[in-house]
Amino acid sequence: MRLTHLKQAVFEANLSLVNEGLVKLTWGNASGIDREQGLVVIKPSGISYDEMTPDDMVVLDLNGNVVNSRLKPSSDTPTHLVLYRAFPALGGIVHTHSEWATSWAQACRNIPCLGTTHADHFYGDVPCTRQLTPEEIRGEYERTTGEVIRETFTQINSMEVPGVLVAEHGPFCWGKTPAEAVKHAIILEEIAKMAFRTVMLGKSNAVQPAILEKHYQRKHGPDAYYGQK
Amino acid sequence: MRLTHLKQAVFEANLSLVNEGLVKLTWGNASGIDREQGLVVIKPSGISYDEMTPDDMVVLDLNGNVVNSRLKPSSDTPTHLVLYRAFPALGGIVHTHSEWATSWAQACRNIPCLGTTHADHFYGDVPCTRQLTPEEIRGEYERTTGEVIRETFTQINSMEVPGVLVAEHGPFCWGKTPAEAVKHAIILEEIAKMAFRTVMLGKSNAVQPAILEKHYQRKHGPDAYYGQK
Amino acid sequence: MRLTHLKQAVFEANLSLVNEGLVKLTWGNASGIDREQGLVVIKPSGISYDEMTPDDMVVLDLNGNVVNSRLKPSSDTPTHLVLYRAFPALGGIVHTHSEWATSWAQACRNIPCLGTTHADHFYGDVPCTRQLTPEEIRGEYERTTGEVIRETFTQINSMEVPGVLVAEHGPFCWGKTPAEAVKHAIILEEIAKMAFRTVMLGKSNAVQPAILEKHYQRKHGPDAYYGQK
Amino acid sequence: MRLTHLKQAVFEANLSLVNEGLVKLTWGNASGIDREQGLVVIKPSGISYDEMTPDDMVVLDLNGNVVNSRLKPSSDTPTHLVLYRAFPALGGIVHTHSEWATSWAQACRNIPCLGTTHADHFYGDVPCTRQLTPEEIRGEYERTTGEVIRETFTQINSMEVPGVLVAEHGPFCWGKTPAEAVKHAIILEEIAKMAFRTVMLGKSNAVQPAILEKHYQRKHGPDAYYGQK
Repeated sequence: MRLTHLKQAVFEANLSLVNEGLVKLTWGNASGIDREQGLVVIKPSGISYDEMTPDDMVVLDLNGNVVNSRLKPSSDTPTHLVLYRAFPALGGIVHTHSEWATSWAQACRNIPCLGTTHADHFYGDVPCTRQLTPEEIRGEYERTTGEVIRETFTQINSMEVPGVLVAEHGPFCWGKTPAEAVKHAIILEEIAKMAFRTVMLGKSNAVQPAILEKHYQRKHGPDAYYGQK
Repeated sequence: MRLTHLKQAVFEANLSLVNEGLVKLTWGNASGIDREQGLVVIKPSGISYDEMTPDDMVVLDLNGNVVNSRLKPSSDTPTHLVLYRAFPALGGIVHTHSEWATSWAQACRNIPCLGTTHADHFYGDVPCTRQLTPEEIRGEYERTTGEVIRETFTQINSMEVPGVLVAEHGPFCWGKTPAEAVKHAIILEEIAKMAFRTVMLGKSNAVQPAILEKHYQRKHGPDAYYGQK
Repeated sequence: MRLTHLKQAVFEANLSLVNEGLVKLTWGNASGIDREQGLVVIKPSGISYDEMTPDDMVVLDLNGNVVNSRLKPSSDTPTHLVLYRAFPALGGIVHTHSEWATSWAQACRNIPCLGTTHADHFYGDVPCTRQLTPEEIRGEYERTTGEVIRETFTQINSMEVPGVLVAEHGPFCWGKTPAEAVKHAIILEEIAKMAFRTVMLGKSNAVQPAILEKHYQRKHGPDAYYGQK
Repeated sequence: MRLTHLKQAVFEANLSLVNEGLVKLTWGNASGIDREQGLVVIKPSGISYDEMTPDDMVVLDLNGNVVNSRLKPSSDTPTHLVLYRAFPALGGIVHTHSEWATSWAQACRNIPCLGTTHADHFYGDVPCTRQLTPEEIRGEYERTTGEVIRETFTQINSMEVPGVLVAEHGPFCWGKTPAEAVKHAIILEEIAKMAFRTVMLGKSNAVQPAILEKHYQRKHGPDAYYGQK
């Protein structure tokens, strides 16, 4: 029963990525996790979004063993699994090749925090990973992609910066649920777009620390006063 | 009765911001004022635009005391109140994180008046405020945001330049009604977009004064001859 | 009867400008001419596109005398009239503040012919007028805008280059009919957009003359072989 | 019978180009080939997409002789024919003036492989042809356009890099079917757009060879593991 709900949530997250304009063709995937059962649900590989049903979502354990599914999981599954193991608070992950975030990832540049839109949702720069070595690429590539993300967050709290750019590749975002991961992907795309233009207009240094502190904490801190809480 | 009309107008202004593509998620708010009753009507905080009704609009007096509303007002309310107190001709205010105006605000640059589209509606550069000090940010941040806008308009007539960029943040626009404030936000976004490209093409100095004078006055001066007046 | 048809054609041309995304708010106008009767039909000034009917189109003679219309003509009418008098082959004119062409106009730069898309429709650069002098601006501004366009075409055939950028202002396009003028405005916007990006990528010198010659002539020359002719 | 199917496929490919936003007005064409019968089916010249039917598609042999059609074929037909003769694996070809790919073509620049989105589908840079000489342009221009593409692929496998930029002109893409050619045109446009922004952000050198190898081969190599194969 609970798994049925999770499959539905993951299915809807995958469709949202398309409807929000973050995914072209089959370039993206969303997953979710049931922490109690230790089961991950993820989009099948290379399936068109038009034909997909909630029941096509693939179920796996955290070691990547497929549980009772006839379709192959997304080829990026090993990356998702590393992240779920590394960051226990994650409930959902999305990967896209969304056009603005991917442009920054291709440029191998962090997205600096240039304004309050960014500071409201990401507590500091959106980091870009280091490039993988040829050995890492030739080996277990998708797993290593997860490892290099984990490495990037050694000094960063993954719940305060809920997304990353993989160098020469594109963004991964996450959240407490698949729907929240989608929301963070929407926000990342918007701040990537505005940061591009701000940099073109000549400013690429981050906002003053007080702005970052104020905006992030008024939404997410212990004394948050945004919304109807 | 009159308040019902104002709530409807403010509700519609908030929806217009979304329909015009100026607001993503819940990143924006519109308000209006009934000058005779001294009552301000504003969007509630962090409420999704899909679920909002006219009756959800929050009513406050000019000191920020909520009058007979069950929802919390937008967290930007103190900024709106400062502006209504500072500029007595204002009937409506909107705040957005619209993508082009925000890119300029993040760059901490005025939008120069580069053509007649701009001159038709804004009588000179759209100014960008100075950055707030860390002390101002840590204090009554939203009220101070209003104060720094007021300070920016010491030498500028707020009815001739009906909008501003708050540095590292985004635009506020205003008008005689909430609907006119929305219209100015649409125009600001369009001129911000074209100014970006013009600057990229190598021109960032303003039009000659005679163009600014001619275009602004033919629409807004005592001898205006645009439209069916 | 014939005037009814022209009013309908001008009405439709005005709506096309909006539907094609070339006009925001009321920032544009289209006109047409009946050369035999010497009558020009043009959009009324400052009227919303939603409320306009074919019968609202204003009829004038070539000297600007309104014939049997209750609405005021577009404030840009004197510009249209100069062009109809200067270029006898014109049957329709449109003026917009379309975002890409206007960005070039604001930059006071010709759009160089950078590819075959341009060469297929405009036989050479799309010229930008000189800036008006303060005296010209303070005088009969809209008429002088027409005069400066005429001056720009002293060495250019207006039927081979069916459009112009007015410096610090925006584009005018024309054609044998109002519908063809709209088509040229669509094309101008597209080539302005691509030229911007090409220039950003580092190339701003025009295509070789043989390409311009080949492409323009295969569509428009005496031995044209494009289409079903 | 088989030809009816091919006409339908070519018709649908032409409409897809419009629906995907790759073609404005009549600026594009798609074709397909029946290798056994040696017959090519292509869009008629200068016909509006709204009025076209599958039966309007023009049938020719590989020497360009029209077979039983009342309409003239696309003026770019000689280019398509050269490509079908040069690259025996091609089943479909599309030509567009899509805005991002054309901007690169106008800049006479290869699109470097800057990320995995590119590497997943194009095995290396998307090459830009050399410019044609004035003699080539004045001669059999469309046939020579095909020859210069063939020349560009002397050292490149046309099935691994299924598209090209013609200098000062625009892109041609191909595939095993007309539908696959359309898909490659969609992908080319997306990578052209992201490459533009990546270059503006300061990176224009290609990804490391190991990334190109890994991504291309995981989708297209003998041990491909993407999708449900």
